[in-house]
Amino acid sequence: MHPVARARPAACGATVPAFKEIDNAMADSGKTYKAAKRYIYAWGGSKAEGNGGMKDLLGGKGAGLAEMTNAGLPTPPGFTITTEACNDYFSSGKKLPAGLWDDVLAAVRVVEQQTGKGFGDPKSPLLVSVRSGAKFSMPGMMDTVLNLGLNETTLQGLVAFTGNERFGWDAYRRFISMFGRIVMDVPSHVVKGKDGSEVAYNRFDEALDAAKEKHGKGARDTDLDVDDLKKLVAAYKKIVKDTVGRDFPDDPNEQLDLAIKAVFASWFGKRANDYRNSQKIAHDLGTAVNIVTMVFGNMGDDSGTGVAFTRDPNTGEKVLFGEYLVNAQGEDVVAGVRTAPKIAQLATDMPKAYNEFKKIAEKLEKHYKDVQDLEFTIERGRLYMLQTRSAKRTAAAAVRIAIDMVKEGLITQEEALARIEPAQVDQLLRDQFDPKARAAAKRMAKGLNASPGAAVGKAVFHADTAVAWVEKGQKVVLVREETSPDDFHGMAVAQGILTAKGGATSHAAVVARQIGKPCVAGCAELEVNYSTRTATANGVTIKEGDPISLDGSTGEVFVGALPTVSARYEDQKDLQKVLEWADKVRKLQIWTNADKPEEAAQARSYGAQGIGLCRTEHMFREGPRLEIVRSAILVANVATRAKGKIAAGQDLTAEEKAAVKQFDASMAKLEVLQQGDFEGILAAMSGLPVVIRLIDPPLHEFLPNLEDQLVKVTKAGDKATTKDKELLATIKSMHEQNPMLGLRGCRLGLMIPDFVKIQTRAILNAAVAVKKAKKDPRPEIMIPLVGHVNELIATQTLLEAEAAAVVAKAGVKIDYKFGTMIEIPRACWVADEIAKYAQFFSFGTNDLTQMTFGYSRDDAEGGFLLKYVEDKILPYNPFQSLDPVIVQEMKMAVELGRKTRPDLKVGICGEHGGDPMSIGFCHDIGLNYVSCSPFRVPVARLAAAQAALLGAAERDK
Amino acid sequence: MHPVARARPAACGATVPAFKEIDNAMADSGKTYKAAKRYIYAWGGSKAEGNGGMKDLLGGKGAGLAEMTNAGLPTPPGFTITTEACNDYFSSGKKLPAGLWDDVLAAVRVVEQQTGKGFGDPKSPLLVSVRSGAKFSMPGMMDTVLNLGLNETTLQGLVAFTGNERFGWDAYRRFISMFGRIVMDVPSHVVKGKDGSEVAYNRFDEALDAAKEKHGKGARDTDLDVDDLKKLVAAYKKIVKDTVGRDFPDDPNEQLDLAIKAVFASWFGKRANDYRNSQKIAHDLGTAVNIVTMVFGNMGDDSGTGVAFTRDPNTGEKVLFGEYLVNAQGEDVVAGVRTAPKIAQLATDMPKAYNEFKKIAEKLEKHYKDVQDLEFTIERGRLYMLQTRSAKRTAAAAVRIAIDMVKEGLITQEEALARIEPAQVDQLLRDQFDPKARAAAKRMAKGLNASPGAAVGKAVFHADTAVAWVEKGQKVVLVREETSPDDFHGMAVAQGILTAKGGATSHAAVVARQIGKPCVAGCAELEVNYSTRTATANGVTIKEGDPISLDGSTGEVFVGALPTVSARYEDQKDLQKVLEWADKVRKLQIWTNADKPEEAAQARSYGAQGIGLCRTEHMFREGPRLEIVRSAILVANVATRAKGKIAAGQDLTAEEKAAVKQFDASMAKLEVLQQGDFEGILAAMSGLPVVIRLIDPPLHEFLPNLEDQLVKVTKAGDKATTKDKELLATIKSMHEQNPMLGLRGCRLGLMIPDFVKIQTRAILNAAVAVKKAKKDPRPEIMIPLVGHVNELIATQTLLEAEAAAVVAKAGVKIDYKFGTMIEIPRACWVADEIAKYAQFFSFGTNDLTQMTFGYSRDDAEGGFLLKYVEDKILPYNPFQSLDPVIVQEMKMAVELGRKTRPDLKVGICGEHGGDPMSIGFCHDIGLNYVSCSPFRVPVARLAAAQAALLGAAERDK
Repeated sequence: MHPVARARPAACGATVPAFKEIDNAMADSGKTYKAAKRYIYAWGGSKAEGNGGMKDLLGGKGAGLAEMTNAGLPTPPGFTITTEACNDYFSSGKKLPAGLWDDVLAAVRVVEQQTGKGFGDPKSPLLVSVRSGAKFSMPGMMDTVLNLGLNETTLQGLVAFTGNERFGWDAYRRFISMFGRIVMDVPSHVVKGKDGSEVAYNRFDEALDAAKEKHGKGARDTDLDVDDLKKLVAAYKKIVKDTVGRDFPDDPNEQLDLAIKAVFASWFGKRANDYRNSQKIAHDLGTAVNIVTMVFGNMGDDSGTGVAFTRDPNTGEKVLFGEYLVNAQGEDVVAGVRTAPKIAQLATDMPKAYNEFKKIAEKLEKHYKDVQDLEFTIERGRLYMLQTRSAKRTAAAAVRIAIDMVKEGLITQEEALARIEPAQVDQLLRDQFDPKARAAAKRMAKGLNASPGAAVGKAVFHADTAVAWVEKGQKVVLVREETSPDDFHGMAVAQGILTAKGGATSHAAVVARQIGKPCVAGCAELEVNYSTRTATANGVTIKEGDPISLDGSTGEVFVGALPTVSARYEDQKDLQKVLEWADKVRKLQIWTNADKPEEAAQARSYGAQGIGLCRTEHMFREGPRLEIVRSAILVANVATRAKGKIAAGQDLTAEEKAAVKQFDASMAKLEVLQQGDFEGILAAMSGLPVVIRLIDPPLHEFLPNLEDQLVKVTKAGDKATTKDKELLATIKSMHEQNPMLGLRGCRLGLMIPDFVKIQTRAILNAAVAVKKAKKDPRPEIMIPLVGHVNELIATQTLLEAEAAAVVAKAGVKIDYKFGTMIEIPRACWVADEIAKYAQFFSFGTNDLTQMTFGYSRDDAEGGFLLKYVEDKILPYNPFQSLDPVIVQEMKMAVELGRKTRPDLKVGICGEHGGDPMSIGFCHDIGLNYVSCSPFRVPVARLAAAQAALLGAAERDK
Repeated sequence: MHPVARARPAACGATVPAFKEIDNAMADSGKTYKAAKRYIYAWGGSKAEGNGGMKDLLGGKGAGLAEMTNAGLPTPPGFTITTEACNDYFSSGKKLPAGLWDDVLAAVRVVEQQTGKGFGDPKSPLLVSVRSGAKFSMPGMMDTVLNLGLNETTLQGLVAFTGNERFGWDAYRRFISMFGRIVMDVPSHVVKGKDGSEVAYNRFDEALDAAKEKHGKGARDTDLDVDDLKKLVAAYKKIVKDTVGRDFPDDPNEQLDLAIKAVFASWFGKRANDYRNSQKIAHDLGTAVNIVTMVFGNMGDDSGTGVAFTRDPNTGEKVLFGEYLVNAQGEDVVAGVRTAPKIAQLATDMPKAYNEFKKIAEKLEKHYKDVQDLEFTIERGRLYMLQTRSAKRTAAAAVRIAIDMVKEGLITQEEALARIEPAQVDQLLRDQFDPKARAAAKRMAKGLNASPGAAVGKAVFHADTAVAWVEKGQKVVLVREETSPDDFHGMAVAQGILTAKGGATSHAAVVARQIGKPCVAGCAELEVNYSTRTATANGVTIKEGDPISLDGSTGEVFVGALPTVSARYEDQKDLQKVLEWADKVRKLQIWTNADKPEEAAQARSYGAQGIGLCRTEHMFREGPRLEIVRSAILVANVATRAKGKIAAGQDLTAEEKAAVKQFDASMAKLEVLQQGDFEGILAAMSGLPVVIRLIDPPLHEFLPNLEDQLVKVTKAGDKATTKDKELLATIKSMHEQNPMLGLRGCRLGLMIPDFVKIQTRAILNAAVAVKKAKKDPRPEIMIPLVGHVNELIATQTLLEAEAAAVVAKAGVKIDYKFGTMIEIPRACWVADEIAKYAQFFSFGTNDLTQMTFGYSRDDAEGGFLLKYVEDKILPYNPFQSLDPVIVQEMKMAVELGRKTRPDLKVGICGEHGGDPMSIGFCHDIGLNYVSCSPFRVPVARLAAAQAALLGAAERDK
């Protein structure tokens, strides 16, 4: 299931169908379930109590083994302890649920019956592997413990069975070290180096190395003879006793008890926790425990073990892909002790086993209708399947496999869509470094993978330098301690951005994602020195002008210019085809956030069906405009009051007259410039809606920073210019305690109406010009930050008059709308009133999240929010994916709004609009569209389709 | 109806019972209602179509006239045009609703029939007065137009009827000037004085003065003869023509049409708007128009007119109270043209009329069960009642009348409670200036009446000076441009506070109300000069040390020390009795916000039943404590991280060790001091709950201001001390973009747990000490700013351990609770989850309002919010009275919380808890208590009772 599905509340934890059939052999065993719940599902022979659909309860591995058994494939008998047992274990204070242990013993008896061996039997010992297995495959969970059940007595039986004493002792030695490390938590041996750094050594490996040393330098494991191994076993047992304070357990039952608990414990291990957090997997799923009869791939040349994929997971090519080792156990393959031959070699080495395996692989792929990742062991010529699961695959492979399988008639287009992760689509659209060059490159540092893609350029440390160098034809990477809006012009021209500070949601990261530039942020190892224009990390220093390469997908920084492999959407026919399928399925339209014609055109080529957010104030900052805007702001209040006096027929002072003149002159200039901006965008989006938001940020954002100006004036002392002092006074007078909650959005428009009046005129005049050029402009004017319906009424009344006047004068029919952002909690509660006037809603979920949580994003993400997510106080960052309460507010607003205006068009703009999980929510509550940055449009197309499919699947239940 | 009732949404606009009876005379007139709605209700003879219960539709005056008519009292016939007609007039773009005019004419015909006169009839002309009349008596609405129907033709009939030509011309002259000014908007004559100031003259008065001048200096109106008056009429008509551009209308119908529209227009006049805003009266009630047959009190010595109250409205004494004038019209009484004799004089002058009036007055008081404010006219010996309405009264009178009427058996205790305005209770508890001294005093300036009461002291301009002088035994008034938290110590010791800037919700105003000090804020006329330590207004300058007097109830500032009259609750037995009645009725408990034992004790004497908010951080600022707190803050982050390292068994650097030492030492000192604070409060409130809120504000609030420190370090340049530079660095590192939404409340506790841990220990140790002193401490620990249940779980888990440890060690049983503030919108949505852990909720409606509206109170109230209320974008300031959406959020939280925990105790702390309208809401949604500042406790007791009564009344409907 794709991540949208798994993260959605209430989508998890579907009830498991009751298992009807009970295998006769099991019934015969006289086993009864004593625990209150059914905690154990066994398999063996050709029957299993579970099946492949029970991943929630049995985990992926357990469900796979059950399904394979049911399909008549050869599996070693065993049983699964359910995820529910794991959860009950934790909820009862880390105690095995009552009755579970008896059930485990009963299940062991069944396995004994099926294998004809005995757990702890000295003559014919049953050995088992114990493995964790959650619903989703998770690194960081418990590794496998093999050969459990061995002790010095049962060892004799193993030796007798294999006829190989060395094999027996080697197995025992391995078992002790595995069990000691994984189950008994034997600590590493930490040694402090001369430079103060600490290195951890595995104590068992140290003992092994010591044993090998006796056979000379470069000796191998295989050089150890039975005596060596016996001594090693003694040494291992001493290590356990010395570090853990108890004897190594000989009783197979105790071994099993401890191993089961260790698997449970691994569910809340740090790495497992971190992984779940990063992947948004719920923490309450729990892990299952699989106890499986050991089979041995290391019993001679008629034995072996391997892993294989039913198709190439890198390219998607339809070919059996994998490796195997003759006379080896699974861990040898994974550890890479010997170079493993390709799976094709098996056809030559053991043709019978190969053919059987090949057939099984094909059968499993057909059965699961997906590429499988298989593990198998051949014991003395007999093939055993140990695992089957959906294979992880690269983005390219995912797309190719999806398309091929549809062609093959194996899956439908809809099923194919569910197989591709939205993140993989994103990946396909980013440049990559050439894999070989990358492998050979010198990694300088590693930071956060803040915005994916590969960037190569000369290091520069200031935005102005970036612009200057780019103008001279250079490619640059902007390196900063951190970035601020003042650096935007440099970021816009750079190939990529590298910062030492700030998280995945810092200014650098957010802007980089928005403009589609690779970014490595928060690279704490990096020390940036602006005065020397250098940056140092791990002893390597780069100077201004030195070439560097950033991998925004991994967070790596390389010295030098690595060659890249480009990834143009236009070239990716497979991806385009998949997204066309997505378009047929999805209910949500995908719009884009774009402030410039180029961005709009690019988004349109990616499939954007409209612009959901065009931020007019972004244009205010460019080049000479900032000066015009500042000139207006400095006199805005005086001029606005003066205009009030004029309207009341009062006389103005000379100062007031000058202010009005300056203000109006600036406004007139701005109006012309903005009209040009809008013409470009409306033309680029001809025939599609363009939602233009009126000025939103507080005016002081366009003025110099208060602290900087304060220092400047203070430093100058008596020599401070009047202009600087006046500027300081204006900045101070506009200063706000909490600008996020201050004079911005429609409040600003109501206080100083000219800004929004000229913007409205500019939009309509632009539309007229575009219309006259025979195109089809569809402007929608969006009024931000409405909390009370009267704010909308007052603003809209003012602006509708402006708009109507422009249109009347031009004598051209223009199809325009007025609407509002819903971004203040209060607005959600009175959306029915607001919808009386607003022709559309667009959710501003960034502000809505800020206010509903009472978080200032700027402050929180660098501070407590980070820790909240780390400490699981919050399940995830609500600025990245919508919080369920925000979704409830939105749902209320949609329902209330449509009560008043049934055909109300509702969308979402802002970063959540490009987040697959949030897109799922938006689908669920019936939005008309999501709007995201141009680069997220393809991702959003897929995510919207998946949401629609999931919705359909849930309805079909 | 008291203001709680009127302001509550959905409490207004109750449907009016259909009027069944139609007077036969009216039916006979053949009058049919052509308008779609019934817009007109007539009265005359002894029958009226309306009644006293129809104030919504007929306004107070119309309903009173109808009621009096129905009661058989003598009223001049007339009719009322409903408030609904007024609203329809506006909603149809200032057009009289269809059919209304025909109905008016028909109603005029009925009046003609009843009076035997004709509207416009030259022989026997019907003249009418036209008056506005809204549901609530409102200054700023249209004045009365008398004698409407007069023109040069009908004038002849009037002359014939009165036999007095001069009377006729004088009436005509008065009519033109009244109608001209009020209906036709003849503008004033504005003259610029030598000093540039503008003075406005009534043009009609100017003409009148010119006419009188001809009779010599000091001539009176009565010196004008018929010829003079005829010339004056001509002059008046010319004024109309010259200024308005049209002839004065002769047609009585046109006069009536214009007058009706003028009444409607006056509903949205500026003064009326302002008044409604200030009194929280809805703007959509509309005004009625009353058209009443003219009767003449100026027809000789057997005629007269007067106003009277059924009891003394100043003292409440049961005595007929009022004035009358022989041979005069109503306007003469109001204008004070002649000194009017007391009403008792009427007994001598016209005993028959007096006795009739006295009986009517008694009848009306009994009928309405309230003191009446009456207007009457005697025309040639015949008494006409023109108005009856509930009398406005002083606070003292309100209480006395309520008590007397209950004694008299006229009303019940419950009815008595509804008669007293909560604001009057507040007034009774404030010191007042001696009225005589006040009348003689020199008023220097006038500002906002920000916090009521009288304050006298020497002017000081700095908080430190205030403290120093008070320590020397002086009484001071703190005069500031504006105040900040840094001035708190000065405000706390001052008699009163005067500021030049800031509104009714500025820091000065809010704090003054909280600590019960009189405050005049936003006194724009005042220029404060800190360097010369002077303040100037209107040409008067006061120096430091000069005595001044503030009246916080009126906003007036006087030079010199005025004598005051004290108002101690203990002395006000009547008030106490009324509040005891209130206690029997109310469902809400009244708690108080208090940070100190003295405040707690005072609130308890006012009837407080618990402490709803004890702000621990207020204690952090006092005297030497601030240094201790700062010392902790400076190393808080390093020390907290270091403690994490200790817990993980890692070594600390020397710097970290020093930080931990410094931090722990400060914390230990603070713990001891806080324990002392809590002991005092818990002892003072023995037996009652004390809700103590853990530290809430961001830590940087305890550090110097960033800008100040920046200037200090910048100025010092190279000479800046390391300490100052380090302090600046710390301040910068703690600086937040939006501190309101930043690291505060429980977030702070989760980041730096020691602050809340020591506070919890201090609270429990204090409780132990108080318990050991044989008192009954009931601490309730409140965790602020919870938005996600996990924040509460994490904090509460941490602190419950601390609390349990203290109690276990002491071996004493302590009854303590943990609860949370609900002040973040998100918390309202998940209140069911939160209530699983929280034992009580307390609404922090200030923050809830800030976040739900997206307003930063600090920024908004001085800025756009003021204008929003002025411009009616918001009906009122949501920080003063709860907004309906906030109430909805609260209601949801209460319902969800009690779903989980049915006995959940829910209260409100913060300023809304002392606001009568908000108290009404709190009652409605089922809170257990409201908590307000000590001085508001008596007010809240009454408001809570009124809310309960209103609730009961609504249920009884």
